[in-house]
Parts: sequence; C-alpha cells; structure tokens
Amino acid sequence: MEYYTGVAKKETMEISELCGKAKAGGTGSIVRVNGAVHTIRDMGNVAFVILRKREGLLQAVYEKGKVPFSLKDIKEAATVEIEGVLKENEKAPGGIEVCMRSVRILSEPADEQMPLAVSKWKLGTSLEAKLNYRSIALRNVRERAKFRIQEGLTRAFRDFLYSQGFTEIHTPKIGARGAEGGANIFKLEYFHRPAVLAQSPQFYKQMMVGVFDRVFETAPVFRAEKHNTKRHLNEYTSLDLEMGYIDGFEDIMAMESRYLQYAMELLQKEYAAEVKVLGIELPETEKIPAVRFSEIKELVAEKYSHKMRNPFDLEPEEEVLIGQYAKEEWGSDFVFVTHYPSKKRPFYAMDDPEDTRYTLSFDLLYKGMEITTGGQRIHDYKALTEKIKARGMTEEGMEQYLSTFKHGMPPHGGLGIGLERLTMKLVGEDNVRETTLFPRDLSRLEP
Amino acid sequence: MEYYTGVAKKETMEISELCGKAKAGGTGSIVRVNGAVHTIRDMGNVAFVILRKREGLLQAVYEKGKVPFSLKDIKEAATVEIEGVLKENEKAPGGIEVCMRSVRILSEPADEQMPLAVSKWKLGTSLEAKLNYRSIALRNVRERAKFRIQEGLTRAFRDFLYSQGFTEIHTPKIGARGAEGGANIFKLEYFHRPAVLAQSPQFYKQMMVGVFDRVFETAPVFRAEKHNTKRHLNEYTSLDLEMGYIDGFEDIMAMESRYLQYAMELLQKEYAAEVKVLGIELPETEKIPAVRFSEIKELVAEKYSHKMRNPFDLEPEEEVLIGQYAKEEWGSDFVFVTHYPSKKRPFYAMDDPEDTRYTLSFDLLYKGMEITTGGQRIHDYKALTEKIKARGMTEEGMEQYLSTFKHGMPPHGGLGIGLERLTMKLVGEDNVRETTLFPRDLSRLEP
Repeated sequence: MEYYTGVAKKETMEISELCGKAKAGGTGSIVRVNGAVHTIRDMGNVAFVILRKREGLLQAVYEKGKVPFSLKDIKEAATVEIEGVLKENEKAPGGIEVCMRSVRILSEPADEQMPLAVSKWKLGTSLEAKLNYRSIALRNVRERAKFRIQEGLTRAFRDFLYSQGFTEIHTPKIGARGAEGGANIFKLEYFHRPAVLAQSPQFYKQMMVGVFDRVFETAPVFRAEKHNTKRHLNEYTSLDLEMGYIDGFEDIMAMESRYLQYAMELLQKEYAAEVKVLGIELPETEKIPAVRFSEIKELVAEKYSHKMRNPFDLEPEEEVLIGQYAKEEWGSDFVFVTHYPSKKRPFYAMDDPEDTRYTLSFDLLYKGMEITTGGQRIHDYKALTEKIKARGMTEEGMEQYLSTFKHGMPPHGGLGIGLERLTMKLVGEDNVRETTLFPRDLSRLEP
Repeated sequence: MEYYTGVAKKETMEISELCGKAKAGGTGSIVRVNGAVHTIRDMGNVAFVILRKREGLLQAVYEKGKVPFSLKDIKEAATVEIEGVLKENEKAPGGIEVCMRSVRILSEPADEQMPLAVSKWKLGTSLEAKLNYRSIALRNVRERAKFRIQEGLTRAFRDFLYSQGFTEIHTPKIGARGAEGGANIFKLEYFHRPAVLAQSPQFYKQMMVGVFDRVFETAPVFRAEKHNTKRHLNEYTSLDLEMGYIDGFEDIMAMESRYLQYAMELLQKEYAAEVKVLGIELPETEKIPAVRFSEIKELVAEKYSHKMRNPFDLEPEEEVLIGQYAKEEWGSDFVFVTHYPSKKRPFYAMDDPEDTRYTLSFDLLYKGMEITTGGQRIHDYKALTEKIKARGMTEEGMEQYLSTFKHGMPPHGGLGIGLERLTMKLVGEDNVRETTLFPRDLSRLEP
C-alpha cells in the first residue's frame, strides 16, 4: 500500500516556464523538455527540431558531431524528451531555444508519411480532408488554436454566470418528447419505448428557474435538420441560460452583452497567444445596438433596395444585410433584432401585450448570422395552456412541465447561444464545421 | 434603435447583500427584495412570510393592521417583490428579517395545493414521489442544495484542470460505433444510417491528446444497461480527462488526488452554506491509499472471512468491504484499487509488462463504491492493433482512431468520474437518483 498526496512537480518544463527562466537570467542552464516532433529542418551542420507542445512550438537545436546521437534517431511525429542548454534566440518561436545534449524517444510513429502537412503555417487543404483526418489536421498550430478560443468562450460563459448567481445544471438528453416541436427530432428506442434526443434543454431549464432562480447549462443538443449548409450542424454545443425575476426581456439582452464583454476580456488575458496566432481582432462589445424586427427589415429593404418578400419572416440574405447595416450605420459587428413575429416562435414565447403578432423575444446576429435566440417566456399557467390550445397543440407529454407553472413560477426568460457559430464568426471562418471538433452533418457520422 | 451596454444593478437585493448591509449598520433602512413565497406562518397579529431565494430563505414579517394590504393577498408559491425595513433577528434565517411595508405580486400559482410539502426541513417523501414531481421537490432547500454541491464538484474539476494546462473539448455524442464495446449501446437511426449514442468520449479524448497534450470533457454519456440498481443510470454526467507525457499511470492517480483536494477546498470556500444545510463532513483527501487488486482482495477475504469466488473479478459486496477496510485500516473514505485484471478492461488499456494478466489501471472507490475508472492506455500502434487482433475484435469503424496512433502519440492515460455517484457519496445519499436532476433508468423517461 502506498499513498497519493497530490501532483508532484515534473522535471520537464513547459514553454512559459522556459521563457520565465530565460527572462530571469537562466540562459545557459540545463533544462528538460518533452514534446512531439512537429517538423525537422536539416541545415547540414545544424538542424532545427521543432517540438509541438500545448503552449506552442519550441525550437530544439541539433549540432552535428557535438552530441552522442544521430539526427536520424529523431523521427517526425515521434514524441521525445530532450535535455539541453536553454538559450535566447529572437528568431526562434517565443524567443528561446534549447541546444540538445541528449534525447530520449518516448514513442515513434508506425508510419512517418503524414496524410496532411500539419507543420505548415496554414494547412491549406480542403475542409473535407481536414475532417477525414481530424485528429491529424488539428495538430496544425492554427487549426488547434480555434478550439482554444472556443474553450475561452465556454469558460467565460460559466465564470461570468457563476459571478451573477447562476447555478449550473445537467439535464437529460434522452426524453419522451422534444421541447421545440417540429420534425427535426432524432428518435431512438429506449428499452422498447419510443424516445427522442433533446433539441434543447428548454423545458428543463425553465423548470429549474423555479428552484435556483438562475440556471445555465453548456451541453450538446441534437437537431435532425436536413439542411446541408455552412451554418447547420446536427449536433452542436448550446450555451443556455434561463433567469427569473426579470423586469423584461431586456434583462436577458443586457446579460448577454455583459457576457460578451467578459468573454473578450478573458480571451485578451488568457488566450492572447491564440488570438495572435489566428490574427483575431476582438470585436467591440461595449454597446450593442438593438432594433425591432419590423423596423430593421424596412431599413434594410430601403438602404439596399432589397425586396421584402414576407414581413413576418427573416431570410438568411436579410440577416446578412442586417449585419452589414449594423456595421455601416452603428459600427457594430453585433446587433440584437427584437420582437420576432409570434408565429415564428415556439408556444412558450411571451407575446408582446402591445401587439400580440409579435413576441418579447430577440435574436443576436454576429456579422450577419444568428448566434443566439432568446426572450421572455410565459410564466402564467393559464396563459400557457391557452396558447397551447390556441396553437392546436396537445398537452400530452408536457404534464410535468406544465405542473411546474401550476405551482408558481417567477417572470423569467433566457437564451441559447450556438457555441460553434460564435467561434466561427470570431475566428473568421465561414463554415461551422471549421470550428467543430468532430462535426455531425447529413453525410458525416465519423470520425 | 437603442444600445445594450451591460448589466445594470437591480434595486432588489440578494440575501448576502442584505446581511452585508445589516452588518455595516444598515438596519432600519428600507430595502426591496423579491422571491418565491416558500411558506407562511400566521401567528395572529403577526405573520412570517418566508421567501425562497437562490441563496437561501429570508424571513419577511407581516404586521396586521400596520400595512395597507391583507395577508390573504400573499399566496404560498406566489412570487413577490416586497419593500420593507431591514432588521436584525437572530432567530431568523441568516440573522436578518424584513418588516414589510408593501408588496407587489409578480406571479400567482394556478393551484395552491402543492403536491409535496416542500417547505418542510426534510421533505420526507418517497424517492418515487420526488422524481414524479421533480421540479417541485427540488424547491425544498435541502433537496436543491445537493445540486449546488454537484455544481461545486464540476466547477472544481474544470478550474483545477485549467490550472494544470488542460484544454476543454466537446466530442460528439452520436457516432457510428461505441468506444467501450459490449451490448449496452443505445441505437438510433441517423438519416437512414445506423448510429449509436456515446458510451464515453474515450476514443475522442485519446485522439485529442495528440493535439492538446491534456484534455478534459464534462458531458453526458449513455449506457443501455439493464441493471435496475441504486447505483446505475442510463444517462449520466462523466468528468473525463486524458493526459499525455505521463511517466506511468501513477500520474493519473496523483492528478485525481489533487482534484479531490481542490474540490473540497472550493466547497468549503464557495459552498459553505450548502455544506452546512446538508450537514456534510467533507472527507479527508490529503493522502489516498492505493493497493493492488489482487492484494486487497486477499486482505478483505481474510479480515472479513469473505469467500473469494473469482480472483479476477470484483463483486459489489467486495467493493463495500474494501471501503470498510480502507476506513478501518487507513482512516480513508477513498481508496485506489490498482492493477485490474486485463480481461476486465477494454482493449485500449495497457497491460502490465511485469504480469500481463493485469493492467496499469485503477478504480477509485469512495465509501465502498467505484466512482472512477482510469489508467494508462496503449500508445503504440503495433501493440494496439495486435491486442485488437488477440481479442478477436475487428478494426472496422476504428480507422480514424487507429490512424491517430499510426502517426504518433505520446504515452498517455486518463480517467472518467461519475459525477452523480461522487455527489451521492459526498452528500450521504444511497441512491444515485437522489443526486441526478432528472434520472433516466429502465422505467423512467420523464419528466
């Protein structure tokens, strides 16, 4: 029997530690580093062995004849532990390099011929190839940086909401019925009973507002949509929040505005390396314009001579024009579009008492694409059941959801953010698969 | 058009703000508070209206004849906003109360007759009833506290791993094949193709070790197990991590030990109220004993005169005895059981080179129940494909997983923690459904 008491400090060093040591006058000292051999540049008498580590790339220098091993011992895609002398070199990544004295091979590839040239600065291959060799493609430093940015966005969402008194919840993804209705539901057999995959945590997060006042969840949602577009996924990560005791749906937009500010601050602080690698210009979030659905449709139709086909619907092209309008007129990449038509929103959306053709709801567009849907929900039991009836829907399967309202619920509202879309727009990609680790679409179920 | 610039401070106050104000000499001032009417205790000339807020309970005092509204205006399960005078009262929850001057009704229940007496200190009803009326049952202060503790455990997992250089990933839950094999896989139809729900993120997190060195995920997993026990769920939240460049599987146990320490520190600091409400005695995590599978089986068999049926299997009763042994002999609620038999572990587990009947793997038991499975994985392509062959398995559907190894992978390992089980043992429950918001089991698909 032995005891585990925590994590012992390793002798091997990370890049930030090496940089710190160099700055503190530690050049010339012997250091140990491990990493994957990203690429080798053989210049004859000297060779640069570039190691890929989680914080970035590190240059290891091999000097022919000065060390007791051959360069041939080191294969690309191997993982190694080296020992060497820490030096400053302003031309090397991070301004430091390690002159190798010895190497220990930790693992070797079975096939040195890589399917993709991951060590190139820009991978420069088709999306199809990147997805087919996903675990290889992401070894490219720029490809993987996108997902570090994605982590920052998720992390900011949680950290900000903790600070605002929200409680994190985990709601089931298998259920008896879908929350959003419609045909885009994946069906499965659950011990000889029909079941579905959750399209959203909508019902659950509302039910939990009666318990915790404010809740959030960051989890997968499933949509069996047959759209094969650059912006649709059949499984995506939804950043969901729901909050009680609101004075109006404006409170939800205010919360999202502040989240975005918080997220940009966190990215600047903790993800500066990735922001730089990707050349991201973090967007202005200090003030986000909000404009009514009916109003912006007219503004856009007028300014861009766009023919408005249906006053109660918003086409993707119109979203793009609204994004353009917000940028040109208000200098903002983001714009809240408010008061969506009631018939375009689910039954639980609260209609605007001043004009019930519209709802107290909003979408947030980012560079002309919807990344958030939110709004106030009906909290009165009678109003809710009447709307269900008026829509010709059945209460079947919603008994527990409705019972929650029967026994009292505060005024509340919430939103859902599509994480992959938010990431995509932030890093400047134009296909949501670029910012999804392992996308699921009509044709893609693997890897 | 208007602008959103962030979250404006509300006039209504939270309990911690009221306590702070009272401590700073603010008693006697007028305050505004909202909340749900948890219960009303009518004493005749005076009544106590107990408000349920996210931070706890707050006593509002109604003095008959002194205010321009009737007590009858306030219904149990309504949500209200009150204005009143802040006072200190050591008998009231939190040591403060608010003497009401006015009330505004925010919402009213359609049915005042609650299905469960949620305002009682202990709900004292059957698990079945609690699950049938889940959104009501959780309004009980002790019931909901369990899920605040659960939040703390998840939050600690992420925060600790961020500090250790891990990257958070989101892997797909719909896939072409399961990672763990066996029969307990939920099947679904994916656009006329057969698909399954993920039993674990195993393959994906390993593939991502080649990209980020260290990764984690906190997400649902799905197991179509037909066990109807107190410890099985068909959908649960798995806290998964996987890390590269390990010196051995001991590194994984060290990481989990430190996580548990970090989690207990966070609970003590940020969740002290809930720890107190539930009367939790936070377990000692400074040193966690580790003992070999074959050794502890013998120790237990001897000490408790337990007949060992199969030297290569561990029965639930044996787990309980091991927990008892660790507590009695080593004073620990936790115990790592190491070197599980190879035939009880999946193909990707690394066999112990010193005795290949066993693996470099472990389980963590907490009070006699397995809450974690982990270990070192095979990282060599040839060794991996040979083991697949030796087990009579096919490589079909694993091409992308295996290709990752073909192109180099560092020595690595990881673990998965069952969040609901960990919570259950920590809060002292004996059925995992007690610490699952909306459990999914053989018979339960709703709410």
